[in-house]
Amino acid sequence: MSDPASPWTLARRAARLNPSTIREILKLTELPGIISLAGGLPAPESFPVEAMAEASARVLRDQPREALQYAASEGFGPLREWLSAQLARDGLKADPARILVTTGSQQGLDLVGKVLVDPGSRVAVEQPTYLGALQAFAPFEPEFQPLACDDEGPLPEAFAAARGARMAYLLPNFQNPSGRSIPAARREAIVAQAAAHGVPIVEDNPYGELWYDEAPPPPLSAAAGEGAVYLGSFSKVLAPGLRLGFVVAPAALFPKLLQAKQAADLHTPGFNQRVAYEVVRDGFLDTHLPAVRARYKRQRDAMQAALQAHLPAGCRWQKPHGGMFFWVELPPAVDATALLPRAVEAGVAYVPGAPFFSDGGRSDCLRLSFVTVTPERIDEGVRALAGVIAQALDTRKAA
Amino acid sequence: MSDPASPWTLARRAARLNPSTIREILKLTELPGIISLAGGLPAPESFPVEAMAEASARVLRDQPREALQYAASEGFGPLREWLSAQLARDGLKADPARILVTTGSQQGLDLVGKVLVDPGSRVAVEQPTYLGALQAFAPFEPEFQPLACDDEGPLPEAFAAARGARMAYLLPNFQNPSGRSIPAARREAIVAQAAAHGVPIVEDNPYGELWYDEAPPPPLSAAAGEGAVYLGSFSKVLAPGLRLGFVVAPAALFPKLLQAKQAADLHTPGFNQRVAYEVVRDGFLDTHLPAVRARYKRQRDAMQAALQAHLPAGCRWQKPHGGMFFWVELPPAVDATALLPRAVEAGVAYVPGAPFFSDGGRSDCLRLSFVTVTPERIDEGVRALAGVIAQALDTRKAA
Repeated sequence: MSDPASPWTLARRAARLNPSTIREILKLTELPGIISLAGGLPAPESFPVEAMAEASARVLRDQPREALQYAASEGFGPLREWLSAQLARDGLKADPARILVTTGSQQGLDLVGKVLVDPGSRVAVEQPTYLGALQAFAPFEPEFQPLACDDEGPLPEAFAAARGARMAYLLPNFQNPSGRSIPAARREAIVAQAAAHGVPIVEDNPYGELWYDEAPPPPLSAAAGEGAVYLGSFSKVLAPGLRLGFVVAPAALFPKLLQAKQAADLHTPGFNQRVAYEVVRDGFLDTHLPAVRARYKRQRDAMQAALQAHLPAGCRWQKPHGGMFFWVELPPAVDATALLPRAVEAGVAYVPGAPFFSDGGRSDCLRLSFVTVTPERIDEGVRALAGVIAQALDTRKAA
Repeated sequence: MSDPASPWTLARRAARLNPSTIREILKLTELPGIISLAGGLPAPESFPVEAMAEASARVLRDQPREALQYAASEGFGPLREWLSAQLARDGLKADPARILVTTGSQQGLDLVGKVLVDPGSRVAVEQPTYLGALQAFAPFEPEFQPLACDDEGPLPEAFAAARGARMAYLLPNFQNPSGRSIPAARREAIVAQAAAHGVPIVEDNPYGELWYDEAPPPPLSAAAGEGAVYLGSFSKVLAPGLRLGFVVAPAALFPKLLQAKQAADLHTPGFNQRVAYEVVRDGFLDTHLPAVRARYKRQRDAMQAALQAHLPAGCRWQKPHGGMFFWVELPPAVDATALLPRAVEAGVAYVPGAPFFSDGGRSDCLRLSFVTVTPERIDEGVRALAGVIAQALDTRKAA
């Protein structure tokens, strides 16, 4: 702020707030005619509109005063009970009294950062990692500490160097952006090493239910107990527009997270919580989720086929077993950030990889989403992208 | 955290997070048979249930995909346009592009604190002031600076001492907890003095529409221009369970508040924003608000009559011209905090005044809400409270 007449002085942390790179890119890609493989938007066809409409009508008929009144900061009791039962099916024992309903799981990240991070605190993160988490933690002025990773996630031996970190932030299932999952044996080794070095785990699991080949192993939190916080979301199983997520917190953190939640927005909209509960309470997800999985599996397979058919030699990727994203490593020295404007000209958009690295890191990779557009458009988009990459390679050879 | 085995280390700011005194009191007052004059809960009879039900059905029929998808962090465009037009009626020119929709106005307070307050920053506040704001700002570790006040609000000459404060947080209309309003002339003087001393204003106006005698003067922000942030809420005009509020921000702050909003919860639920817009778009409030005002005016008058009829000599209060609260000053040395358990025994609850003072200040005052219970119950509750106060006075005389 250089205006000398302005009475406003910003907090130091405001310098760590920056425009979301992805949101800026998404604006570009809203141009007509662009096939966007950039956004992480769930397919709107998968939203349970009819069930939501019925549930909304029921809530406003049977419990309007409770749904529209101020409510407990902890969240709606029956929804917390339901979550507890649901998590037990995934192997996580969660006392409903330790479940805090949040305004999307993004708020869970904000609250965790607020309660744990001092200026200069170390926060260990995967490379790459979820950009939204970097943005949620950044205003609390941490030093991000990269955890060495391979195709199975963070290396267990990386946790020794993370000793003293306020948390290790991990996404074990179909990670955004890499699509990578941590296998069961690696999970055990990570939990053991994190415990040995006193590194608490913040486990973020927005994509766990979106598996297309087999269900993921139990969460890290199931083994880590009081040494882990677990974050979940309704955004991918119902709809993101409800902004419903939750945190399962250990005894050492629950009261502070709850107080931070009160200070942040008093409580998550009671109307939304009751509508979601009405939708899910009688096993709706048991039929809804298989349909969502089948849809996304087709799209995942279409993208895998398109990548195999069109990408030039030297590109590298793993087929993800769930989630929403392929992560493509480009041939040496092709810069995904520099390539984006040409891709948009060619009618396709993606998210360059660089912002997903806490140190700004690698620019030779990009993220492609397969959940928003149809298989035909996926093929068309990947073909256009392949053309742009091939052109960049030709230019390099010619130079 | 004294457990040596725990891997968790809390951020320093976590020490400034504390259980909400009011929420703890509210738990007490949920006991059956207690007449609660404690909570600030709007009368559920005033919620526009039918309009909400129709709007929800319409939104999920006509725009389900947009309502349930991720959405812009700024908020729903048509709702921001509507807010701009609505604020113009109150004398505040607000560019829709500078309106940020928040998850309740509590989130507006959190974002303002996040963007403006460094550890040790001074934040000037009225005495008493809204407890929820103290709680929202506290984690950012400000030093609260009391502004000297009289029955017309903060004294203009108090702003000289506030020079260098990151903000002066003010509630000009029917303040929570004091019920006090700032008259037009005092508003002008405050804006002039704040500008002269470079003190930016954060104006919180959740109660402005709840006037029972005459509409309040234009907001401070109308005169302060770029030197003020304005916070508003749908909680008192529609229903708090939607969690819808908004911030009107100057150019110097809007981008940072928006980025803080993205980091905090991505966006306020699009479903809720669209439902609220459907309810209000065609002038619904023009008939709804007069009905709400008429209801609350009856209850305000009932409480005024009850206080006049029952309270012992030495109690002092002003009849509020709007809002939800009476603020009662007790005879010297009667302690409202110490008295609460006896009041609850006698069947009535209130909120002691102490937590509303940033310095823990005065304990000889209490807050009474007139919006939640019927006129008959108000009379009954005030009569019980009067008995307890009279008893305390007798005990003091006897001692």
